[in-house]
Amino acid sequence: MSFRLGLVNPNTDDGHTTAMAAVAREMLPDAEIVPLQPERGPSSIESYADEAVAAALVVEVVRGTPDLDAYVIACFGDPGVDAARELVAAPVVGIREAAYRAVTLIARRFAVVTTLRRGIPELEDGLEREGVARRCVGVLPLEIPVAAQGAGHPDTTEAIVAVGRRAVDELGAEALVLACGGMADVARAVERGVGVPVCDGVAVGVLLAHALWRAGLATSKRGALAWPEPIPYRGMPALRA
Amino acid sequence: MSFRLGLVNPNTDDGHTTAMAAVAREMLPDAEIVPLQPERGPSSIESYADEAVAAALVVEVVRGTPDLDAYVIACFGDPGVDAARELVAAPVVGIREAAYRAVTLIARRFAVVTTLRRGIPELEDGLEREGVARRCVGVLPLEIPVAAQGAGHPDTTEAIVAVGRRAVDELGAEALVLACGGMADVARAVERGVGVPVCDGVAVGVLLAHALWRAGLATSKRGALAWPEPIPYRGMPALRA
Amino acid sequence: MSFRLGLVNPNTDDGHTTAMAAVAREMLPDAEIVPLQPERGPSSIESYADEAVAAALVVEVVRGTPDLDAYVIACFGDPGVDAARELVAAPVVGIREAAYRAVTLIARRFAVVTTLRRGIPELEDGLEREGVARRCVGVLPLEIPVAAQGAGHPDTTEAIVAVGRRAVDELGAEALVLACGGMADVARAVERGVGVPVCDGVAVGVLLAHALWRAGLATSKRGALAWPEPIPYRGMPALRA
Amino acid sequence: MSFRLGLVNPNTDDGHTTAMAAVAREMLPDAEIVPLQPERGPSSIESYADEAVAAALVVEVVRGTPDLDAYVIACFGDPGVDAARELVAAPVVGIREAAYRAVTLIARRFAVVTTLRRGIPELEDGLEREGVARRCVGVLPLEIPVAAQGAGHPDTTEAIVAVGRRAVDELGAEALVLACGGMADVARAVERGVGVPVCDGVAVGVLLAHALWRAGLATSKRGALAWPEPIPYRGMPALRA
Amino acid sequence: MSFRLGLVNPNTDDGHTTAMAAVAREMLPDAEIVPLQPERGPSSIESYADEAVAAALVVEVVRGTPDLDAYVIACFGDPGVDAARELVAAPVVGIREAAYRAVTLIARRFAVVTTLRRGIPELEDGLEREGVARRCVGVLPLEIPVAAQGAGHPDTTEAIVAVGRRAVDELGAEALVLACGGMADVARAVERGVGVPVCDGVAVGVLLAHALWRAGLATSKRGALAWPEPIPYRGMPALRA
Amino acid sequence: MSFRLGLVNPNTDDGHTTAMAAVAREMLPDAEIVPLQPERGPSSIESYADEAVAAALVVEVVRGTPDLDAYVIACFGDPGVDAARELVAAPVVGIREAAYRAVTLIARRFAVVTTLRRGIPELEDGLEREGVARRCVGVLPLEIPVAAQGAGHPDTTEAIVAVGRRAVDELGAEALVLACGGMADVARAVERGVGVPVCDGVAVGVLLAHALWRAGLATSKRGALAWPEPIPYRGMPALRA
Repeated sequence: MSFRLGLVNPNTDDGHTTAMAAVAREMLPDAEIVPLQPERGPSSIESYADEAVAAALVVEVVRGTPDLDAYVIACFGDPGVDAARELVAAPVVGIREAAYRAVTLIARRFAVVTTLRRGIPELEDGLEREGVARRCVGVLPLEIPVAAQGAGHPDTTEAIVAVGRRAVDELGAEALVLACGGMADVARAVERGVGVPVCDGVAVGVLLAHALWRAGLATSKRGALAWPEPIPYRGMPALRA
Repeated sequence: MSFRLGLVNPNTDDGHTTAMAAVAREMLPDAEIVPLQPERGPSSIESYADEAVAAALVVEVVRGTPDLDAYVIACFGDPGVDAARELVAAPVVGIREAAYRAVTLIARRFAVVTTLRRGIPELEDGLEREGVARRCVGVLPLEIPVAAQGAGHPDTTEAIVAVGRRAVDELGAEALVLACGGMADVARAVERGVGVPVCDGVAVGVLLAHALWRAGLATSKRGALAWPEPIPYRGMPALRA
Repeated sequence: MSFRLGLVNPNTDDGHTTAMAAVAREMLPDAEIVPLQPERGPSSIESYADEAVAAALVVEVVRGTPDLDAYVIACFGDPGVDAARELVAAPVVGIREAAYRAVTLIARRFAVVTTLRRGIPELEDGLEREGVARRCVGVLPLEIPVAAQGAGHPDTTEAIVAVGRRAVDELGAEALVLACGGMADVARAVERGVGVPVCDGVAVGVLLAHALWRAGLATSKRGALAWPEPIPYRGMPALRA
Repeated sequence: MSFRLGLVNPNTDDGHTTAMAAVAREMLPDAEIVPLQPERGPSSIESYADEAVAAALVVEVVRGTPDLDAYVIACFGDPGVDAARELVAAPVVGIREAAYRAVTLIARRFAVVTTLRRGIPELEDGLEREGVARRCVGVLPLEIPVAAQGAGHPDTTEAIVAVGRRAVDELGAEALVLACGGMADVARAVERGVGVPVCDGVAVGVLLAHALWRAGLATSKRGALAWPEPIPYRGMPALRA
Repeated sequence: MSFRLGLVNPNTDDGHTTAMAAVAREMLPDAEIVPLQPERGPSSIESYADEAVAAALVVEVVRGTPDLDAYVIACFGDPGVDAARELVAAPVVGIREAAYRAVTLIARRFAVVTTLRRGIPELEDGLEREGVARRCVGVLPLEIPVAAQGAGHPDTTEAIVAVGRRAVDELGAEALVLACGGMADVARAVERGVGVPVCDGVAVGVLLAHALWRAGLATSKRGALAWPEPIPYRGMPALRA
Repeated sequence: MSFRLGLVNPNTDDGHTTAMAAVAREMLPDAEIVPLQPERGPSSIESYADEAVAAALVVEVVRGTPDLDAYVIACFGDPGVDAARELVAAPVVGIREAAYRAVTLIARRFAVVTTLRRGIPELEDGLEREGVARRCVGVLPLEIPVAAQGAGHPDTTEAIVAVGRRAVDELGAEALVLACGGMADVARAVERGVGVPVCDGVAVGVLLAHALWRAGLATSKRGALAWPEPIPYRGMPALRA
């Protein structure tokens, strides 16, 4: 029986969805990768407000496709991840939490490469929330937006390599995390350029989701991630009848 | 010149909106209190998924009324507070962050009274995020939902008093925080019943918002809370043209 | 009924007392501001030993004027704040705790500008105690003592602006906190010079004290802040008969 | 090309080695599982001293079999995990770190079930080190030693179920972690008995090790986990010539 | 050359001063123990306000006897310890910081026995400040005041033993700390009664002070503990001319 | 009755053993210093793998000489310290934990000088574990290995002085810790060169061990540090029969 994975891109950039699905298929060639994307919403996620909108759209998307074996939420802010967990019993993995779980198994210290400087506080807070702040030597911004990330933008890849080298040489990074789903298809190129392991959350996220499924570990339905309460919604369908 | 405060109820329960507006008006009799509420959405917020939906609705509400002097987001999960901050220059205050800022000025240790047990992890995580976890001796659930909170439900008030006494006698709480906007209008009754100060986020939230405005402290537009990036949105208006 | 606020300057610099009272009156024009100051003691507070002396003097001052509606302790070390809380039921607010509560509502990251380099460890420890260390990008010293702070020292204001710009440009500060009561009357000038919100503890301290009073929140008399124990004092009046 | 995994049992209990290898093979039926075990040493690991001895034996074992694709160190104390990482470029995973990474993806709060009470401080310290202390509601001892764990001891399984129910009902655990490699083959039975997901580090450890290998993530050879320094050893072979 | 130790009792209870000096002389029979005590002030220290008064008196006492080889501040609140450090180059040790440094060398987990329940938050905050909060399983109050502590109060000793046994049996304490200088002379009796090591800060404080002196480690005069700034004092002598 | 101290050098460098014994004898001229050293093992400890090997050798050494009054484990990684504590009732002190306990009594902020850059993460993690991370302004590497440390290498001493000055001038260090047993005999020379107190763990470690013994504080045999469990060892003697 084949493993069916919902790969949720919380933004509306079809190109990113396609590129991330290709990464997922490379990692899990025998699985059925189901790319999911909201019909409306931001084309990329760069601010708290974009993320708030996207998290609600992740809820919509997962509610609309509730029968897959596992879900990956493929935006580095992990928008709506705990919300999605409430809506299904299958395991749900965010690419940020996946990347941090993987990188800390192969390095004692890592650095995070991100898009815009304004996102640094949110990333630092996320490192704290995930319990890995002490392992991170720095969050380094490119000042290049999400829209210009990915294999189609070789200049961006060069900029990532330059920033990554600085993280290794000056800050003591032993590995890098790429903090944007849009960077998924350049991880190997950056690794070659910098010379330390480079961790992309999409690749490790889909592998982790598969591992949880394989181990028979479903989302707990006791406590915080139980099915939503049956409360009325006005003007839109309730989460639970 | 009068102070105009947007009091945003993130849920669609008209009764709670009315009750919270009354509390706000009592605190700031000379101000103009503008009650705001999404047109659609959950009638109360009890889970991560409800909160994700509500945060996006807070974005909508604040975008639709951008010219007030300050905003209070009146749900204890503080849904969309940082997102709202990006959308205006005026100060924005969540009732959770307000309650914790107030209670820690009048007591060294406090307890939190909440609705459902399932919400405890989210509240504990919020205490950590707000930097007050060490000051809190416990989060105590009533197992009574948001919908049955408020002055119209005297049994609930009795339950809050009972839980509050236990927090004081057994856990060493010196004050209580009521973790639900729907409890705003019973704070004084609970205080009389338990005999320690009781902090309702709506009352202190509107006072804090006013204080920031009075001190001339606007939301910083440098860094993390700057105006949203001008990225395209598909099928819905962009946050910033 | 008017609000009567005790504004306690823990040092003996009459000029600072006057300047801070002016700031308080500007914030609360309808209140009665009662400036209080010890008769003896340090003219400014720059070290742990100065602060230990000052804290005991704050106890003396508050004991001598116990019937006001609220108190602000107006030195950034918050000397004797918890001690003062034990001596009255009225709310007591330190300007440090006030400043941190305000600045974290309008910015995700802030910097602290202080007088002497030697004070940095004490300020860092205070950030930790107040639960806001992660929100602070740096404590920057002027190496200009308390005695040369305030509107009467325009060179100092220029130095604050220079340091503040560095905090914004190099460290990612989104707002500034002025860590000295003597800087209260230059906050607006620094704000104009740096271009980010500038938070002075005196202004927000008096507003917070008023807000607590308005919300009916008194200091808890259960637990750590209860009235002092009735223990004998030798050679000086007991705190409680 | 098949995946070759070194499954290192740090103790000398052949039965546990066999039982854990069976779990590994069930998780990764297409992989070559290579069970490894020191020739001498403790038959189980219950104290700091046992663990110190075992960690050095893990070094010996990994040095003696350096060419596998990945390694799992299958004792919940993760003895010698970082040491092993220095000796190979392949990924190395401890079953403790694996279990915590998995359980925090499917539950907001979990409990740990362990063998002896004396081990609680070490487990608590490990939760802190791994950054998951806030997610754990308690470490519950069975007071049954490692030697009496596993499918061959049905009374022990009953005791785990009883302790696990208490963790769920009284402490709010949403999932359980079994803190002993010897418990690997009873995880599903405990899950049925308690009714929440039960995470065994061996199952998720081998899946995580495979995931890292599949993603091409090797141990970083820059910084803390680089090859050992070429220092002389007296009376035993140097780690690096 | 003999070692001359200033043993500062911050309160005015002559009996406690005498009892603590006897403990000190037992620990360091070849040293000159100089008991020091303020002429006025609280007869015991039970609240923040008592402690604020006492800290200023410690400053006075140390300033008045500045030529000893080391100082111990013998009240568990460590009042004025950092202030005293600024006033001398000799090492200064508080009995709280001494007790925590000792107990964590002989046990992984300890409990603190204190006088009044109201003091628990201050003790918990001190555990956090000293970096040992995770090592402490609980702070247990006797509800017996400082004035009734010591060898002259056998009932109190019995109460300490009872509380200590509870800490060991129910909380997993492996050792006890007695959180009151007045308990110094009953530590051995409690140890016999409870059966785990019992750490009194006076005994270990004087030994630690001697150890620092013996190792030639003086208080650093660079940075935070440098001599006080030469600022004017009104109505009292300046700390530094 | 004389005090008999086991000074355990975990590595096999006879020169370091001799130099550290001389430091110990200078600190405790009336004690019997018993230098102990494994017969085989690394000549210095620079990596996790060296440390794992050394910790097991510390177990062997302490087991072979169980009747001394106290033990100091004289390598800055504190290898096997808790393991050694299980094997004896006498107090056991590591030089790292000793150095941190001493330096934080004489300075608010300190820096650590170490050998190789690769060791920084392990040292940072140790600062966290010991609860003193906030007090440390930086860990500065010499990039000179353990083997070239000590009074016989004056160039190394010069390098330590240079690094130490930088720590004081640029990072605000008020004192230094030398993070290598091999540096024990140059502490005074570095202190003269840098002008702040310099803390060597061997000197303060032997004094602390003596202080614990003098205070009658033995290792607790309840809980985590109790005698090892009586489990069978294969091919080597059990830790406990």
